[in-house]
Formats: sequence, C-alpha cells, structure tokens
Amino acid sequence: MNKLIDHVTEYRVRYSDTDKMGVVYHGNYLRIFEIARTELLRSLGLPYAELEASGVMLPVLESYAKYQKPARYDDLLCLRATIPADVSLRLTISYSIECQTDTLVTGWTRHAFVTADTFKPIRPPRKFLEIVRGSLA
Amino acid sequence: MNKLIDHVTEYRVRYSDTDKMGVVYHGNYLRIFEIARTELLRSLGLPYAELEASGVMLPVLESYAKYQKPARYDDLLCLRATIPADVSLRLTISYSIECQTDTLVTGWTRHAFVTADTFKPIRPPRKFLEIVRGSLA
Amino acid sequence: MNKLIDHVTEYRVRYSDTDKMGVVYHGNYLRIFEIARTELLRSLGLPYAELEASGVMLPVLESYAKYQKPARYDDLLCLRATIPADVSLRLTISYSIECQTDTLVTGWTRHAFVTADTFKPIRPPRKFLEIVRGSLA
Amino acid sequence: MNKLIDHVTEYRVRYSDTDKMGVVYHGNYLRIFEIARTELLRSLGLPYAELEASGVMLPVLESYAKYQKPARYDDLLCLRATIPADVSLRLTISYSIECQTDTLVTGWTRHAFVTADTFKPIRPPRKFLEIVRGSLA
Repeated sequence: MNKLIDHVTEYRVRYSDTDKMGVVYHGNYLRIFEIARTELLRSLGLPYAELEASGVMLPVLESYAKYQKPARYDDLLCLRATIPADVSLRLTISYSIECQTDTLVTGWTRHAFVTADTFKPIRPPRKFLEIVRGSLA
Repeated sequence: MNKLIDHVTEYRVRYSDTDKMGVVYHGNYLRIFEIARTELLRSLGLPYAELEASGVMLPVLESYAKYQKPARYDDLLCLRATIPADVSLRLTISYSIECQTDTLVTGWTRHAFVTADTFKPIRPPRKFLEIVRGSLA
Repeated sequence: MNKLIDHVTEYRVRYSDTDKMGVVYHGNYLRIFEIARTELLRSLGLPYAELEASGVMLPVLESYAKYQKPARYDDLLCLRATIPADVSLRLTISYSIECQTDTLVTGWTRHAFVTADTFKPIRPPRKFLEIVRGSLA
Repeated sequence: MNKLIDHVTEYRVRYSDTDKMGVVYHGNYLRIFEIARTELLRSLGLPYAELEASGVMLPVLESYAKYQKPARYDDLLCLRATIPADVSLRLTISYSIECQTDTLVTGWTRHAFVTADTFKPIRPPRKFLEIVRGSLA
C-alpha cells in the first residue's frame, strides 16, 4: 500500500488574485499549488531552494486542476499538498484548496527530477527518498 | 464524425512571463490559453465580451496542460485553439503552443455555459451553436 | 507633527515571482505592496474587505517604487507599510521591503476614498479616521 | 533641445488582467509598460533580447504610474513609449496608455545599463547611442 504525506499551508486571497467575475482567476491556482508543494517540501526538511542548490530541479511536466467552487477576495484558504511516500522516477503531487468546510479546487502536478545545469532526467536523490520514506516511519 | 474549428494567434514572450529557470513559468500558460480561446471566439464573430454582455459566461471547470519544451524570452509563439463543431452542454477547448517547428505545450480547458447573474448552468445559446456549426458549412 | 502608524508582514518569495534575471520581477512589487497595506489595515481593525462591504473603496491613484537591491527565490521578506495618523482627502501609504538587514525596495501608493457603487470621491469615513487617530493615543 | 523618439504598440486587455473592481489591476501596468518599451526598442532595430545577448542589461531602478481612468476587459489599448534621443548614464522611458481618445495611465521607468554577468554599471553601448541618435536624423 502506498502511504501518503501531506501538509497544510494557509493562503490569503488578494485583490491581485481576483478577476472581473469577482473570484480568483483560474490561472492563479497553479501559482497557489506551487506555494502548497514548496511548504510541503520545507516541512519535510527538504526546502526546494536547497534541492536546487544541490544541483537538482523538479520541473513541472503536467498539471491538472478542477475548479469546483470559487474563492473570493480576502478568503483565508487552506492549501493541502500530498505526495506518495513511494516516489519513483516521476513525482506526482496532489492538491486540495479548501475554505472552511468547502473544497474549492483540486488538482495535481507531475514532476521530473533533472540536473539543474543540463536538464537531464535523473533518479530522485537518495536524501530525498530517505526523508520522504522516513517521514512515515 | 465531429469536425473541428481552429484558430491561430501570435504571442510574444515577455520578461514578466519568465521565471528564474529562464523559461516561461508553467502557471502562465493558462493565461496564454485564455488569449488563444478569446481570439478563436472573436474570429468566429463571437467575441466573449459580447457573450458576457448578452448574459452568458463560460467559466473554466477544469484545465490540463502538458509542458513538453520550454518557451524562452522574446519567442514569438503560435497559439492554436480548437473547438469541436458539435458543442454540447460542456465545451472543451484544446490548445497547442508552438514555436517554429516545435510543439511546446498542449492542453485543454473545459467550460460550462452559465447565466452571468446567477451562475446557473444553461444550454449553449442558439446563436453560439449556429455560428459554430455554420463555420464549417 | 504628523505621527506615523506602521505594520510589518512577512512574505516568502515564490518561483512565480521571479524572472529570468533570477530575481523578483519589478512589476510584482505592486502586488507585494498590496499585501503590506492590506495587513496594515487589518492590524488596525479595519479590514479592507469590510471597508468595501460598507460601500467605500480605496483605488490606487499613483504608485512609485525604487528598486535598490534584488529579492531572490525563497527569501523571507519583511513588508513594512506606514500611514500618517493625520489622513486627509488623499491617503498616502509608504512601503519598505526588507530582507535581513537590507532594504530592497521602497515606494508609496496614493489612494482616494470613493463610493463602491458610483466611484464618486468622498471624505474618509468617520470610523476610519477615529481608528487611525486613536491607534496612536 | 532634447528630442524624443516614440513608438505605439497595441495591447488587448485580458480577463487575467482584471480584478474584482472590473478593471485592469493597477499592478499589471508595469507589465504593460514592459511591452511598450520592448517594442519601442525593437522598432529602433535594438531588440532587448539582442542587447542581453551582447552582455548588457537594462534593469529597472524606479517606476512611477498615475492611474487616471480604468481600462476594461477586451479594451484595445494603445501603448505609447517615449525615450529621449539624448541618452545619458540613466535611461528614462515614459509611457502613455490610451484607449480611443482617452489617456488612461501615464508613467515612467528609469533604467541603468549594467553588465549581464556582474551587474556592474556601464556606459550605454556605442551602438545603442548611435541608433537612438540616428533615429532622429
């Protein structure tokens, strides 16, 4: 069974996030997903900035989002990001954006591990795998 | 057989579109998809601004993007948007972002037709269906 | 003498904030200034969302920014916003974006008080003036 | 007398540019100014991408904008950028955003010439000066 690791971060909706429908512009959720996964990695002791400094990048290969209910100006959102403990060559991160008891947006992004200089695909760094697996121990 | 209608618009990559990887930030493609579909609708004689003025909106229900190759600063991109001539309750628009002979990003968005005031789902406006079907005649 | 009220909020730099120079895109600081002034108003017990709900808006009339040093990916910035306790018809809010001991960006925005429905200029709401003046008592 | 060089580019307002006030978010005009100055430089035969490729960058030191009237969704804007023919160590570019007969936003940005690798200030490249001065001949 594949276990899951998740983390929740808060995000306040700003005027700049909204559009003339009075709700968060759908395209801004990919930016909000980025916040969710960055704080998930930080919470595991794996800040993405350190990963890059060590020569590894996690570019986005694919993204999907389902917009179920609108988020509005000044809403305080809960950003939930989830990764499987059993990471393989590709890393899929799932997201759920919630406000109070409502789920507003769900989605996922799929990432490769590549070298920061040549963008060649590589296996996940050992430290990454150990920490992710260990976080469930 | 479901026939297709497509349209190509040009887009110049700006500094503001890029991120520190030196390429277009993946989240910006949803904004670029919007440009592609807006110009497709305009080319059919159905400007989205007029659709809204007539009381109909096309909110995004879902979006998907596959990032195959990076777009770079000052690239002149071709944005291809495609809709089926046979529109039903939901409208799916497909996108292909190309630069010279390369396909960089593909994806799609799925939309509902709703009333602009109450956001209630409605059937596609008759004028919309007639124009879309007629554009293949 | 015109006394000042200020407030500090933290902001984490995201990938989406950066550009291909590897630093925060200059145009994003106006969005960051918005965060600073929104949290200043909230700290005074005057959430901007409530101001709007009461029929008053504070549109931006002018903005100025001076980019002294670059902010980089994952920097944790301190956003300092300052308003004068003696508000007149126009409200000028000043900003200082700091990282550790460095001042990176400074600037200001100038706002009018207008009615939310007709955008007519009005005097600052009595509650606004009382709270701002009282916060120094 | 200091002569001026200007250039006009068109820009279509998108949904992603607007905010819940129903108008273009003020912070987006710095991105729109970038489009105006980039096309001005291109029109002179000095594409900014080539300038960077030759090792010279023009980072923004300061920016100012005055928001006089709102731009709305689907407006087709005229972006006018102006530079003085007599460039010195600092380059100030002025902007005027117009829609039909209205001036909506004016402003300016101030730039330094720096080396792309070390960010050291340098004098404007000879080719830059010759072209700018020559464009008035």
